[in-house]
Amino acid sequence: MKQAMIIDCHGHYTTAPKALENWRNQQIAGIKDPSVSPKVSDLKISDDELRESIENNQLRLMKERGSDLTIFSPRASFMAHHIGDFNISSTWAAICNELCYRVSQLFPDNFIPAAMLPQSPGVDPKTCIPELEKCVKQYGNVGINLNPDPSGGHWTSPPLSDRYWYPIYEKMVEHDIPAMIHVSTSCNACFHTTGAHYLNADTTAFMQCLTSELFKDFPTLKFLIPHGGGAVPYHWGRFRGLAQELKKPLLEDHLLNNIFFDTCVYHQPGIDLLSTVIPVKNVLFGSEMIGAVRGIDPQTGNYYDDTKRYIEASKILSDDDRFQIYEGNARRVFPRLDAALKLKGK
Amino acid sequence: MKQAMIIDCHGHYTTAPKALENWRNQQIAGIKDPSVSPKVSDLKISDDELRESIENNQLRLMKERGSDLTIFSPRASFMAHHIGDFNISSTWAAICNELCYRVSQLFPDNFIPAAMLPQSPGVDPKTCIPELEKCVKQYGNVGINLNPDPSGGHWTSPPLSDRYWYPIYEKMVEHDIPAMIHVSTSCNACFHTTGAHYLNADTTAFMQCLTSELFKDFPTLKFLIPHGGGAVPYHWGRFRGLAQELKKPLLEDHLLNNIFFDTCVYHQPGIDLLSTVIPVKNVLFGSEMIGAVRGIDPQTGNYYDDTKRYIEASKILSDDDRFQIYEGNARRVFPRLDAALKLKGK
Repeated sequence: MKQAMIIDCHGHYTTAPKALENWRNQQIAGIKDPSVSPKVSDLKISDDELRESIENNQLRLMKERGSDLTIFSPRASFMAHHIGDFNISSTWAAICNELCYRVSQLFPDNFIPAAMLPQSPGVDPKTCIPELEKCVKQYGNVGINLNPDPSGGHWTSPPLSDRYWYPIYEKMVEHDIPAMIHVSTSCNACFHTTGAHYLNADTTAFMQCLTSELFKDFPTLKFLIPHGGGAVPYHWGRFRGLAQELKKPLLEDHLLNNIFFDTCVYHQPGIDLLSTVIPVKNVLFGSEMIGAVRGIDPQTGNYYDDTKRYIEASKILSDDDRFQIYEGNARRVFPRLDAALKLKGK
Repeated sequence: MKQAMIIDCHGHYTTAPKALENWRNQQIAGIKDPSVSPKVSDLKISDDELRESIENNQLRLMKERGSDLTIFSPRASFMAHHIGDFNISSTWAAICNELCYRVSQLFPDNFIPAAMLPQSPGVDPKTCIPELEKCVKQYGNVGINLNPDPSGGHWTSPPLSDRYWYPIYEKMVEHDIPAMIHVSTSCNACFHTTGAHYLNADTTAFMQCLTSELFKDFPTLKFLIPHGGGAVPYHWGRFRGLAQELKKPLLEDHLLNNIFFDTCVYHQPGIDLLSTVIPVKNVLFGSEMIGAVRGIDPQTGNYYDDTKRYIEASKILSDDDRFQIYEGNARRVFPRLDAALKLKGK
């Protein structure tokens, strides 16, 4: 059997040079005092700095752990769509997307970009389309990250099933790109960002789809729900039962042609559950490395987020299953990734 | 080995006579038009009606499934603390708690009450104490349901770790009663009540405890997190890793003397995961029957919420584990339940 290419569908540029954060802080300061607002051209990050930030971090760990290619998007918690207005988000998204693009150009075999959108609470999602199209057409992005809650934990936008979001979906379908449904920093004190808000958003997004007919309107629309689908696989019986109460079709037919889960679940029993209840065709390898959980698990001596180990150690998955999770499913869910690989003879 | 008493720690009075809902609707109508506000005395439900609502529903299923005793609280989704002001909630809680008390008097071997609180968004939790104390002292309640989000999905209250909630905790400790952390209906269109809001609240509550030192201030405070702990056991590695990043003690020491999970997880793989990662001493049998998921699972031919079957079929749990989950842990977490049983020689 062909050795799988290990494609990590969930990587963020969490290790960008400090200059990026400094620029962002300056931009935020400029919301209150426009006289201190930075220009885009004030941000100077050299190719060498980018190389160093990647080689010493993501690429080093990818080599150590044996993954080949990461779908790489701007740092999720730094999207912070709740800060400022559309112009603030627009400038910030353009900067972050350009950096991920540059990383993909510097390491074309190891990184391929996915875009953040310049979302802003209460602003028509249509306004995100120019950035989306630039990223797809000029930067070779193969997917987007869509934030279902740009308010940052106040959940003031309509559900993902609402026509409000349709302009984005029309573009996704047109360009054949999936969206990872990924929130950003919580500014609601109730929700810890990576320990509650991220997982809640995953569960919430799934249920918004379950109660709706969204995928009847967009049969080819694809959502990747990160963090192993939040609470969904653990409560798969509950969701099957709720669909039944709501007179929806079986989840396999109702949602699983359109919804996929990554493997960002940081222990063996979790990955085993995911592999037991969710069809293999709906699971994509992901680690969210270097992300929320960077430590070493004292119970195993390995990094919590070295999710490849759990997949390797699984007694549930066959070699063919592993191939699909590592490579096959990613090529199918991200057709532009597949096309880019084929262009290189991969 | 002694046959366990099967104690279901999570039952709500979801089958109350229709007159209750009609009265509530009238109460809600009265918020806009006080001339139509009902009096408490307008609600008339006879003992026979109560008996019938229980005998044909919960008690019938308890007998069929083989559970003995249910810790019984008012219907969670009907608490709806976001409706009206404190007075509205106060009257409503008193009515609902009285009904559960009456059920416990009519069926003293099968039901023992837990109280809802008259919470209201933005109102000092201290105002709940008279109802809490009445329920404990006069009605023999053995626990309370505490809503961490009385706004119904807008999450406008401080986290559970905030001193805001301490007056409730002081009374809980004084009376040695645990709280089930249970939200009510979501009035935020983003969150489906039983498919998203409930599970999100479970995860959120756990993480609020994890980031805090709440149980240093209240070493004997006990929280029961329902629905199998939301996303927590599935992401146990993530939570262990986050605690490590935050320089907290191991979760066993940091939280598991105070936090417990029920078994309201509606499929075998979920219960197996729960049993694998969470110590047996922290798991209490619960079904939330008759609740959100009332159907029969076509994959098994059994009710989704017949959670006893999953525990019976578990290959992970020993007979002693099952005894603890069915009876031992509930007696320890609900000391007033244990005392009430002992008074009856049980």
